[in-house]
Order: sequence, then C-alpha cells, then structure tokens
Amino acid sequence: MPVPRPGQGEALVQNKLLSLDPTNRLWMRERDTYLPAQALGEVVRGICVGTVVESNMPSLRIGARIYGMFGWQDYAIVRPNDLVAPLPDDPSLPLSIHLGLFGHIGMTAYFGLLDVAKPKPGDTVVVSAAAGAVGSLVGQIGKIVGCRVVGIAGSEEKCRWITQELGFDAAINYRSERPLVDALTKACPNGIDVYFDNVGGEVLEAALDLLNLNARIAVCGMISGYNSADSRGHVAAGPRNLLQLVIKRARMEGFLVLDYWDRAAEAIGAIANWYQEGRLKYRVHEVDGLRNAPAAMNQLFDGNHHGKLFVKI
Amino acid sequence: MPVPRPGQGEALVQNKLLSLDPTNRLWMRERDTYLPAQALGEVVRGICVGTVVESNMPSLRIGARIYGMFGWQDYAIVRPNDLVAPLPDDPSLPLSIHLGLFGHIGMTAYFGLLDVAKPKPGDTVVVSAAAGAVGSLVGQIGKIVGCRVVGIAGSEEKCRWITQELGFDAAINYRSERPLVDALTKACPNGIDVYFDNVGGEVLEAALDLLNLNARIAVCGMISGYNSADSRGHVAAGPRNLLQLVIKRARMEGFLVLDYWDRAAEAIGAIANWYQEGRLKYRVHEVDGLRNAPAAMNQLFDGNHHGKLFVKI
Repeated sequence: MPVPRPGQGEALVQNKLLSLDPTNRLWMRERDTYLPAQALGEVVRGICVGTVVESNMPSLRIGARIYGMFGWQDYAIVRPNDLVAPLPDDPSLPLSIHLGLFGHIGMTAYFGLLDVAKPKPGDTVVVSAAAGAVGSLVGQIGKIVGCRVVGIAGSEEKCRWITQELGFDAAINYRSERPLVDALTKACPNGIDVYFDNVGGEVLEAALDLLNLNARIAVCGMISGYNSADSRGHVAAGPRNLLQLVIKRARMEGFLVLDYWDRAAEAIGAIANWYQEGRLKYRVHEVDGLRNAPAAMNQLFDGNHHGKLFVKI
Repeated sequence: MPVPRPGQGEALVQNKLLSLDPTNRLWMRERDTYLPAQALGEVVRGICVGTVVESNMPSLRIGARIYGMFGWQDYAIVRPNDLVAPLPDDPSLPLSIHLGLFGHIGMTAYFGLLDVAKPKPGDTVVVSAAAGAVGSLVGQIGKIVGCRVVGIAGSEEKCRWITQELGFDAAINYRSERPLVDALTKACPNGIDVYFDNVGGEVLEAALDLLNLNARIAVCGMISGYNSADSRGHVAAGPRNLLQLVIKRARMEGFLVLDYWDRAAEAIGAIANWYQEGRLKYRVHEVDGLRNAPAAMNQLFDGNHHGKLFVKI
C-alpha cells in the first residue's frame, strides 16, 4: 500500500504502537455493539500512538506524538473531527505508557472503580483478570483508597505478582483453586462489597453468591464469552443467581471509558501522581510487528500474556 | 390453639387479612435470603392487617386497625419493637387496600419505579407480571409520569385489562406471542429505557436485548425461578446477554420495599392523591379462609389470580 497523502486540514500519522484490548473482539462481531460492527475489507480498528509526519492541520505539528484510533496499519490520515489526543513531549516517558497507565487503560480502571463501583475505605474489592492491564490497576487503586483487595488470575506467577509486587491482600488462581466459590469465600471472609468484573461467566456467578448488602458490580467486560457468543451476542449460559441483586439490594452497572473522555485530565492527573509516588506498578507485553497482531489478539483470551499487550508496528 | 394473652407492654391483634406475595416464597427457602429462613414449626410469616383486641401498649388502643407481620394465624401478639403501622380509622377504605395500594404493594411500585429506575418523560417503560398487584401500579405510575408503557402478562384477559382499563400503551401475552423477543421488539419500536423486572428468566433476557443507552433495570423479583431454584438459590439458567449492560452502559439494581419504610408517607400520600383523582385503578383477589392459603400461594406462580391476592382469615 502506498503511503497516503493528507488533504487540506488533514495530517499524516506514522503509527508506532497498536494497543490490543479485549473490547477489540466486540468490534469484530457480526452485529453492532457500542460501535458499528467492523466491516470486512476495512482497516481493522485499533487504538494507537504514533508520530505526525505531515500536517496540514495547525494544531498538529510535525514530530508530535499523538494518540488515536489509527487502526492496524503503518500510516493513518487524521481528519478534522477525528477523536485524537496530542501527547506530552516528554522523552522520559515510554510511548507505550500512553496506551496503558496514562491512556484508556488507566482511565478504565480509575472511572470504573471510583465512579461506577464507588468503594469505601474498608470495603472488600474483588477484581477478575487481576493481573491484566486494567485489573492490576483496579486492585492497586483499591488499595490506595483503603480497601481490602482480592484478585482472581489464571496462574501462580500472576497471583504472586499481584500479591507480592502490587500489594493485593489475596489472590486466587481460578484454574487450580476449585470450586471457585469456595476459594472466593475463603479469600473474602467479610463478603464482597465491590466486584469489578472483567470476565463474566462463572467468576461473576461466584461473586454474586458472596455479595454484601448494597454491593456494587462494575462491569468492564465479560471476556469469558467474547469468543464463544452466538450471532446475537448470547453466551452459552448466564449467572443463575441474579436474584442476589434483590436479596442484597445490589447494583450491577456496565460502563465504557469512551463516556469519560471529557474527564481524562482528572484520571491521568491522579494516576500520574500515584505513579510518581511509586504507588502504581505496571508491566507491558510487547509483540513485534503488525503481522503478529492476530496471534497476539488471541493471547488476550488465553491468558498467555503478562501486562498491557501492544504491538510495535 | 388457645388465644394468647398479651404481657406487659404488649398487645393482642385479631388477624383479619393475610397478604400473599411472591416474596413469601423466598422466606421459605432452606437458606437465609434477606430475612432469616423460615424455620420448620414456626408460624408461617406473612404481612397482615388486623384489629387490636387487647392492649397493654399505650400507643395501640382497642379497636385500632393495624398492619404488621402477624403471620398465618388468627391472633398475634405485638411486642414493643415489632415493626407495625397503625392504620387510619377510615371506614370508607376497605381493609384490603392497606395490603395493596396503600401498603407494601403501592410502595414497591412507587419506589421501585421512581427511585430505582428513575424514568424520564417519553421513556419506554416495560413491566413484567404487568397485571399483577405491583406491575399494574408500575405501569399506571409510568403513564402518570409521562412514559410509554408496555406490559407483559399471561392471558388475553390480562392484556385487555391493562391496555383498556389501565391505559398501558401496549401489552404482550407472553404465553402466545412467540418468540417473546420479536413481540417485544414490535411493542417497543424505540427500544427500552426502563425495565421493571418481576419475573427474571426469558423475559429479562428479551428485555436486555432491547435496552437503550443508559437504560435502567429495577429488579423487584424474579418469580420465574422461585419454585425451581436449587438449595443455593440458583435457577437452571441465567440471561445469556448480560454484556448488554456494558454495551448500553446500563444499570441493573435490586431493591426491597423494606428499605423505604421511613419514606412510607411520601409514597402513600402520592398514591392516595392519584387514586382520588381516578388515575390509579386496582383489583383484588380474595381467598376465603386460612386453610386455603397454601393453595392460594401457588396461584401467585401459575398466574391464576387477578389482582392483589389476599386471604380473609
């Protein structure tokens, strides 16, 4: 493909890094979700960071670092109404941090936990996919605001990382600690006040069984069903104990970070402060080359990645 | 059984009417729900209205009408800390209205719809068990606050009643209009903003499929599973499309009228005004004799009752 040329009022971005996020899988469904379904033949959608290499846009100077939905390609044209964010020109920050801690991942953890789930000091917060990009931040922010934090992850290494390095109070390896509801009962002797759901399925069901009065479930995603849902988006089975929402007067609420874009400065500001104080740790998993992006996407769902997954283009 | 005698600071109530409510079935489960599990050999719990026949309690005069958890029995002792409510001494009001419109039923509809689901004028409100005691009020209050109201019920007669007598905009007979999601799609051309859930199961799943952005599901009950749940309270299957809560940034919240007891005057005051203005209609289903209470309980779940079900003791 020839490199495109920006028209009047447009700019050309050279794509540097491509973020791989579980929600990308929803964009690839047959039916529209919160974005129109990705059409066959289109450039695959993806959040990226890149560098402006040509510009007919006064607000974007050549050489500027920029964040936006540039897709699975080497170069992208930025048009006047595209949702892009210029990035601080601070060479001490690795470019990848803007796809993670200081990007949509940090904002997802921050708003999902603090705005949707509203934890109080002393609450027990449970998070699934707890060694993942979002989950690992949710747990650390939970500790910062004074909660007892329990993480659910898929390996001994991940469980050690979140407890020994990140300061989670307890971790459960959902692959080996069975039945899960028993392990969760043991890890949450005072029940669950907040469940930050990334996976749905049996983990959601186990968490529902242990809810406390007026508990909150912030639903970030339900990745256990993303590859198995039928054409209507239905999974094989849903939680069999939703009546717990009545018995415990509990709230379950879905959210998308897109809705919080106008409050980005608040989240990134708080996260940057905590990061500088050494209170937020973070790891990234880099994959080299766009040709490896499809295989890397699958790693999001089999758990064979460690930290924020992105592709170096 | 001999009639008990009230002790110091106690009163004796002669039970007149026993309310039968789907939630009674939860109290009979093996495990505790929001109340401790009913123990074998205890008087079966039930909300009643009665008359004070003896009193050593200054606040309760003999002859006063009183509302409380007096149970499936002819006489009950009221103790100082029991949750009871003296009723207005207005002989023009049938006693049964205090178990329905002016009691926990009216409050459930009022707070569940207005406080939990928060409908806005123009919203599409869907309610299941729509010809039931709570559902029929939810729909009418929905109309009063300016919504388009769609009811789901189990017979042609019930559908006619809610549309022709109560003013619902549309009704679906879930027994004959199949598949339900198609009937609901047709009845809700602009999607669903509020779903007031009384039944759970397939109706909840169909409603989830049609949610609008920022929709609210107020969960009052999920009676489709009350007789079939296992010892943990799990039903056979849950909704397979809970991810809709994320895609639509929707909220699902359970509530119990017990939590609103301190605001009873607000609800009953509003309901009484609407009733006097002829804007709330209501029907009752009276069963004669406590011996018929067990069979009548089952009618709550097979749909063979019409209106607020109670037993004349």
